[in-house]
Amino acid sequence: MKKIAVLAGDGIGPEIMAQALAVLRALDLPLAFEEALVGGAAYEAHGHPLPEATLALAQSADAVLFGAVGDWKYDVLERRLRPEQAILGLRKALGLFANLRPALCYEQLVHASSLKPELVAGLDILIIRELTGDIYFGQPRGRRTATDGHFPGTEEAFDTMRYSRPEIERIAHVAFQAARQRGRHVTSVDKNNVLETSQLWKDVVVEVHKEYPDVTLEHMLVDNAAMQLVKAPRKFDVLVTGNLFGDILSDEAAMLTGSIGMLPSASLDANNKGLYEPSHGSAPDIAGQDMANPLATILSAAMMLRYSLDLAPAAQRIEAAVQKVLEQGLRTADIWSEGCQKVGTRAMGEAVVRAL
Amino acid sequence: MKKIAVLAGDGIGPEIMAQALAVLRALDLPLAFEEALVGGAAYEAHGHPLPEATLALAQSADAVLFGAVGDWKYDVLERRLRPEQAILGLRKALGLFANLRPALCYEQLVHASSLKPELVAGLDILIIRELTGDIYFGQPRGRRTATDGHFPGTEEAFDTMRYSRPEIERIAHVAFQAARQRGRHVTSVDKNNVLETSQLWKDVVVEVHKEYPDVTLEHMLVDNAAMQLVKAPRKFDVLVTGNLFGDILSDEAAMLTGSIGMLPSASLDANNKGLYEPSHGSAPDIAGQDMANPLATILSAAMMLRYSLDLAPAAQRIEAAVQKVLEQGLRTADIWSEGCQKVGTRAMGEAVVRAL
Ligand SMILES: CC(C)[C@H](C(=O)O)[C@@H](O)C(=O)O
Ligand SMILES: CC(C)[C@H](C(=O)O)[C@@H](O)C(=O)O
Repeated sequence: MKKIAVLAGDGIGPEIMAQALAVLRALDLPLAFEEALVGGAAYEAHGHPLPEATLALAQSADAVLFGAVGDWKYDVLERRLRPEQAILGLRKALGLFANLRPALCYEQLVHASSLKPELVAGLDILIIRELTGDIYFGQPRGRRTATDGHFPGTEEAFDTMRYSRPEIERIAHVAFQAARQRGRHVTSVDKNNVLETSQLWKDVVVEVHKEYPDVTLEHMLVDNAAMQLVKAPRKFDVLVTGNLFGDILSDEAAMLTGSIGMLPSASLDANNKGLYEPSHGSAPDIAGQDMANPLATILSAAMMLRYSLDLAPAAQRIEAAVQKVLEQGLRTADIWSEGCQKVGTRAMGEAVVRAL
Repeated sequence: MKKIAVLAGDGIGPEIMAQALAVLRALDLPLAFEEALVGGAAYEAHGHPLPEATLALAQSADAVLFGAVGDWKYDVLERRLRPEQAILGLRKALGLFANLRPALCYEQLVHASSLKPELVAGLDILIIRELTGDIYFGQPRGRRTATDGHFPGTEEAFDTMRYSRPEIERIAHVAFQAARQRGRHVTSVDKNNVLETSQLWKDVVVEVHKEYPDVTLEHMLVDNAAMQLVKAPRKFDVLVTGNLFGDILSDEAAMLTGSIGMLPSASLDANNKGLYEPSHGSAPDIAGQDMANPLATILSAAMMLRYSLDLAPAAQRIEAAVQKVLEQGLRTADIWSEGCQKVGTRAMGEAVVRAL
């Protein structure tokens, strides 16, 4: 029996999670689900977005299934109490350094993309974002009086970007190994023409690459990567980058597919324990209206079965079922187009269960 | 008589610059042009990408017209000798803190965009990027042995992101004032849910906004901005952000228009002295082949007349002439489509001169 921590969170989180759980339960796997509050919901109940009990559950579980957190109404709180701190706290406490974000364009949804269909048809990129280092967690950071720079004597704020050699090595290995399961091409993205951190990043990726002669490696500056994703996204296979650049590029790539409501993600530690969540946010504007697309969460559950629970056949059943409901023409509002049948969150989840 | 420093640079730089100069000369303005080497060309001749004589010329000039720098072959040099260091050095030495990058989609070029025509027709965004602060110039930076973090005792590299209050204030004023000439809407982009620097950025922008009650202000996280540019780019009017995020987002936005070969840029100091350059790079692969699009450089010259030389009517003449050659159906290879007449760099420049 494997223990799954179920953290539904805020906004549409509980609705999409309910459908993912329904799909997992229908598969009759040896899984035990334990729920806990996280994000704004946890703040309301316990005064903190990541209460100790929630963290303890996540640490003791074999995998974490995560919905979404956040709402505009928490913007007024001091940063450490805002919902999204829960996700940063979980990544750090669980050592989830490898974020896998597939950006793929479903054949049936080609027309939902902002891009011309001929540019995105068949698009299949795997973005691998380092998730526990970089400027997200680097110390020192804070406010102080500037002693140099353009305006000494004035108030300034600062953050530290940093990466150590082993941090870069381990994420590079994840990228090259993933590439071996796919197109055997890795694009490493950095800003080495400006940043010391990026220069070390590039140097280390080049070294690790020597162990993977069967994989081709390309380096790209982050500004150019932001352009090439728009211009010719299908040229990418695996894209590996640091935490900050990965945050920006993975969202850009996800939106390019037009299928952001369909895209799952995995955040893994060194032993393939992981946290699984949809790539989209908590969408408070449509919460509670049975409108959200549950497929990204359902597909995140499939990733969980594959990466953390060694249940690849069950993962495939879920993925095939999702494919089937798309072929049946069922669409939630975010991916709906003329000629398809518009369904709500619940009906979509039920259709996946039937299609299993 | 105003003195213009002409820095053509590498790759296609000299070709596109020649056309911009031809256009400026045809206008018979009281301008004196002085040329100097920069980038790889300067490194070859003098061992440094920004020789002292070039910097002195730029400092003594009323404005700088810049082509492009860089070539793969310099990647092996240590960073301080690479071509792009010239541009960082010029920005810093001249105090060019305000980078203005229009992203607009020409009616005649709507189909050159990766995006569906209905999403980009009429697109007109002004991106204002802070250009002398942030992690680009923040000290300390370098390599050292980590004393904390995930792997203490190992080699690490680090950089410092920082902004002082007056640095943010002055770029915010530029943005709000620019918005008054346009759609009166500013989107300030940061990552305040993670970065201290971004929190100060947001706080200061909110304060400066009080002086501009006639302009609406919106805040957007950088990952979301990368998405919204793809999803609904026309919702933006003026987008203001820091140096690093501006680097990424301005290139993304430029590529979205499909007209990157058409997009000029201005980098201004506190007195409207500026450096003007096309948004595209040095394209060494097509250098010397009379293939490059000179229009971005010609339009940069127009921006120079307007912002630094108080010659707005002459700027308008150039812009109208560019519009006219597009209407005539002339296209360089990068923007060519069926039914248009393909022309080279020189022929395009000559056509603009005729259309003046
Ligand atoms: C909520 C936020 C802190 C987070 C991040 O920046 O990593 C989110 O944008 C993401 O990509 O998961
Ligand atoms: C060449 C490089 C240092 C520069 C930058 O990052 O600012 C370039 O990308 C730009 O945007 O002008």
